[in-house]
Amino acid sequence: MPALRLYDLAGADPDRRFSPFCWRTKLALAHKELAVETLPWRFTDKDEIAFSGQGRVPVLVDGDTTVIDSWAIAVHLETHYPDRPSLFGGDVGMSVTRFLNAWTDKVLHPALAPLVISDIHAHVAPQDREYFRTTREKVFGKPLEEVSAGRDEAVLSFRQTLEPLRAVLQLQPYLAGTHPAYADYIVFGAFQWARCISPFKLLADDDAVAAWRLRLLNSFDGLAASTPGYPV
Amino acid sequence: MPALRLYDLAGADPDRRFSPFCWRTKLALAHKELAVETLPWRFTDKDEIAFSGQGRVPVLVDGDTTVIDSWAIAVHLETHYPDRPSLFGGDVGMSVTRFLNAWTDKVLHPALAPLVISDIHAHVAPQDREYFRTTREKVFGKPLEEVSAGRDEAVLSFRQTLEPLRAVLQLQPYLAGTHPAYADYIVFGAFQWARCISPFKLLADDDAVAAWRLRLLNSFDGLAASTPGYPV
Repeated sequence: MPALRLYDLAGADPDRRFSPFCWRTKLALAHKELAVETLPWRFTDKDEIAFSGQGRVPVLVDGDTTVIDSWAIAVHLETHYPDRPSLFGGDVGMSVTRFLNAWTDKVLHPALAPLVISDIHAHVAPQDREYFRTTREKVFGKPLEEVSAGRDEAVLSFRQTLEPLRAVLQLQPYLAGTHPAYADYIVFGAFQWARCISPFKLLADDDAVAAWRLRLLNSFDGLAASTPGYPV
Repeated sequence: MPALRLYDLAGADPDRRFSPFCWRTKLALAHKELAVETLPWRFTDKDEIAFSGQGRVPVLVDGDTTVIDSWAIAVHLETHYPDRPSLFGGDVGMSVTRFLNAWTDKVLHPALAPLVISDIHAHVAPQDREYFRTTREKVFGKPLEEVSAGRDEAVLSFRQTLEPLRAVLQLQPYLAGTHPAYADYIVFGAFQWARCISPFKLLADDDAVAAWRLRLLNSFDGLAASTPGYPV
């Protein structure tokens, strides 16, 4: 089997790996029981991944094949390693999981980002700081510190956004049922993103979402829990 | 095979069947290629379904078995008719579809209901009108006509709510992939609810969600399109 290599977003501390999209991929690789070499990468290291034809991570190199975009990587792993544990449980499972992917990208991340954006800035590598601030302040239209300033109140509406997630996790231990699968890794990636760079408390202790997050932190021998980050 | 009977919410016109939850069930039955006798039922016909131990539809009577709650009915059909086309595509598919169920109940319905609530009232059976108005005005805290009054503006944020749905349907024809399954029927039930009782235009013509809705209206020989309602 060819060696797998993953370009993985890192902070000032090269072991602080905080990309939610890279976490989807790392948990998918663990689920498939595939060893991977992760290479720390910074926002401004565009040249290092120019071979992939674009400038964002995750980038997976699997032998002679380069795959970009976390969803395409998950589909690649499912297709190329069909004898390993399934990430989707079949075609319908894959298609329906895509809704979770879209909900996470279009609802969960935009609700979460303002709560932690100034904390991300504090952890990115020195050479990335100006790039990060400039691109993100353009999106938010104000200084990052102002974006996060109202978070003690904004976290309440963030928790409201999680209502469909909570409703499911009150009925079953994982989004994929009795065991986690890619649907879980997509959503968990958002919480792991936050945990890696922010001490801000996102969830109430008695939230079913918090219990699920803890189960995933401890899965795969604590793959997510053992990385540099803050207690949840 | 025992005859299947479904208690199905009807309006003043007994053929106007507008419950989004009953539509989930009717499409699931069609998907399973199961014939069903639908019995028109009104909100105030509590006695008629008292045998089910509660007062809401859908109620499915399958031989000696009574099943309440649209999700439980779908699981019952999947389990008891395993040789018919699958509603979920396996255990992971079923579990992940549950998120669609929760999103529809907790996000889509609350975004849609205010747009059409006064139109529902205009179509419920005369004996249901006071019950419907009283219970719903208690929820909204104001007259139904006031709830729907701002809908020309509110529909824009409703369309924004559909963003994750739209993102998926720009990539694949159905939520379940190349063919529809229960994930589609859950979400479609909301649009069919609206179509049955309201002329209000919910979607722009060039919306991928509108194209998907049309495909489902025409599925199963036009099961949903041929019921009394308004053009979309």
